[in-house]
Amino acid sequence: MSELRQDVTTREWVILAPERGKRPTQAPKKKPGGGDPGWDSTCPFCPGNEVETPVETFRMPAASSGETPGWEVRAVPNRFAALTPQGDTTRTEEGPFFRKMGGFGVHEVIIETASHNTPLALMTYEHVEKVLTTYQARYNSLKKDKRLRHITIFKNYGWAAGTSLAHPHSQLVATPIIAPYYHRKFEVAYEYYADLGKCLYCDLIAWDLEHALKRVVAEESEFVVVHPYAPHVPYETWIMPKTHCSSFGLFPAARLGELSRVLKDTLFCLYQGLNNPAFNLVIDSNSNDHEDDPFYHWHIRIIPRLTTIAGFELGSGIYVSTALPEDTASYMRKIARSCPGDVCIAFKDYE
Amino acid sequence: MSELRQDVTTREWVILAPERGKRPTQAPKKKPGGGDPGWDSTCPFCPGNEVETPVETFRMPAASSGETPGWEVRAVPNRFAALTPQGDTTRTEEGPFFRKMGGFGVHEVIIETASHNTPLALMTYEHVEKVLTTYQARYNSLKKDKRLRHITIFKNYGWAAGTSLAHPHSQLVATPIIAPYYHRKFEVAYEYYADLGKCLYCDLIAWDLEHALKRVVAEESEFVVVHPYAPHVPYETWIMPKTHCSSFGLFPAARLGELSRVLKDTLFCLYQGLNNPAFNLVIDSNSNDHEDDPFYHWHIRIIPRLTTIAGFELGSGIYVSTALPEDTASYMRKIARSCPGDVCIAFKDYE
Repeated sequence: MSELRQDVTTREWVILAPERGKRPTQAPKKKPGGGDPGWDSTCPFCPGNEVETPVETFRMPAASSGETPGWEVRAVPNRFAALTPQGDTTRTEEGPFFRKMGGFGVHEVIIETASHNTPLALMTYEHVEKVLTTYQARYNSLKKDKRLRHITIFKNYGWAAGTSLAHPHSQLVATPIIAPYYHRKFEVAYEYYADLGKCLYCDLIAWDLEHALKRVVAEESEFVVVHPYAPHVPYETWIMPKTHCSSFGLFPAARLGELSRVLKDTLFCLYQGLNNPAFNLVIDSNSNDHEDDPFYHWHIRIIPRLTTIAGFELGSGIYVSTALPEDTASYMRKIARSCPGDVCIAFKDYE
Repeated sequence: MSELRQDVTTREWVILAPERGKRPTQAPKKKPGGGDPGWDSTCPFCPGNEVETPVETFRMPAASSGETPGWEVRAVPNRFAALTPQGDTTRTEEGPFFRKMGGFGVHEVIIETASHNTPLALMTYEHVEKVLTTYQARYNSLKKDKRLRHITIFKNYGWAAGTSLAHPHSQLVATPIIAPYYHRKFEVAYEYYADLGKCLYCDLIAWDLEHALKRVVAEESEFVVVHPYAPHVPYETWIMPKTHCSSFGLFPAARLGELSRVLKDTLFCLYQGLNNPAFNLVIDSNSNDHEDDPFYHWHIRIIPRLTTIAGFELGSGIYVSTALPEDTASYMRKIARSCPGDVCIAFKDYE
């Protein structure tokens, strides 16, 4: 069983999960989708191998539809989970310095498609919407358990981004603690709200749209796609809803269709412009303590893994990026202009 | 020229250094030392190619020694520096949300040896001591400039750890800001001192040596080598001086000989036991604002890169590690016992 331990020198928690060391890893020879077959008999996420995953928590469409394979998107518990619902929630002190708690939590896999080799960037808009609907269904089901203080939905795409299986999938981890990165973001946003009575992100979006179009890649009626002012890595991309909404779980389901177009087109341009790069994607949502807050504002962060995170970044937390967001946003707009038939959202023509 | 920018959603600074994108990268085919020649005519750090680096800031032994190649360790400014002494220190506001400052700072390379293929793990103790002496000489020279608020010495070993050149080298970055990781560590240590009037790390070392020998790998008269209670990655290793000392710059030079034995033997056991793994090494030293503090305690962190840092870690800051430090420390002690003629420090025989 896994456990959480707190580092007394930083007060940050880590998850120690020895079982995860046993998970299978496919040989990192190819880029996902790059030469892989559409179906792989040895892949636990491919149709026909459903028995290799634990009992699913969600599927689209419902099992009764009678189609083959009978599903388009599935959510299943991670067989090599970092945290489990069976985990203990007791906190234990080990002497004056060490604190641990049982590995209670949830760790699921969202199998995005029955196709072994179709990445999100190349799916139809309709299918991407089904993936987003699955994300939200699992988020809203799990948030009812208030012991789960934060729900992180994320994706590792490509070996350099830490994936261990090629079949397109995302993950969801619900933790009994607030992660340090989110703690910091909530604190900063709360202070802004306490000072000005407004949402930092709402103001930031309005300012970028009026004054920083160099960093704005695309704008739709409900979303803006920007390269942030202070990125951690080249081509870091944020997708932000324009209307205030603190939690991904509270975002109107009727708007997931637009989000699917914005997300797919953004990933498609990265795929086209950067030769199918590895990336991480994270949905930054509010804590589950107070889901509906006036000060926080959910958004998606896409973190391309074009360079290796090295000793200075790991050691100090200061990221060194070799590109300016003004330049990378310009290149993304150029890519979108070069394939007008393949993208439908409103990429900016600022240049 | 590079610049620092602050992320308004986290208040963390990043360094944007477009020039670094132009640095040369050798093909990541081999592990460093694994099949590389002892001298490479195309390597800017090999003897004979000294003109390819900027004018050196330090060398051992002095140039006048008349030896060939005339040096054993060299420190030079990084030709593709993230920060430079010529950089501006002005802070500029760009509207209500964005703050930047010029890329003032220092970024140096410490070329650890004239040999293209001898990693630290396989150097003589005497040579490792020369590397440490160079580290300290550069640290103590740069700390006189109080605009440099923190000095980080680190090493990227192996392609998975982010190195771009095979020739054994370390780096030093001196920044006009305190990095978020260190800010957090200083804050936690300061609170402990404010409450108890003692150094957290001194107490932690004493407790580990009395109660947590399972995690202690080795102990010498002045150092202890431990696998920390809450590691970020499997085999994370801390080398800590037993006597209180806040800054690497203030550590007595007479004790660098013992540190060279402790560091070399620790790296040798990782090299032997984990098949020459990629790793990052960082010296966590005090800020330059108040170098001699009663509450902080410098130490070395070694972070093996056996697994990829993926979306959950990058997104949330919560690290998931697949091994317990009690188990990894046990394995390291076993490796040390299996090669008694190659290690000289006192590895524990706890089992």
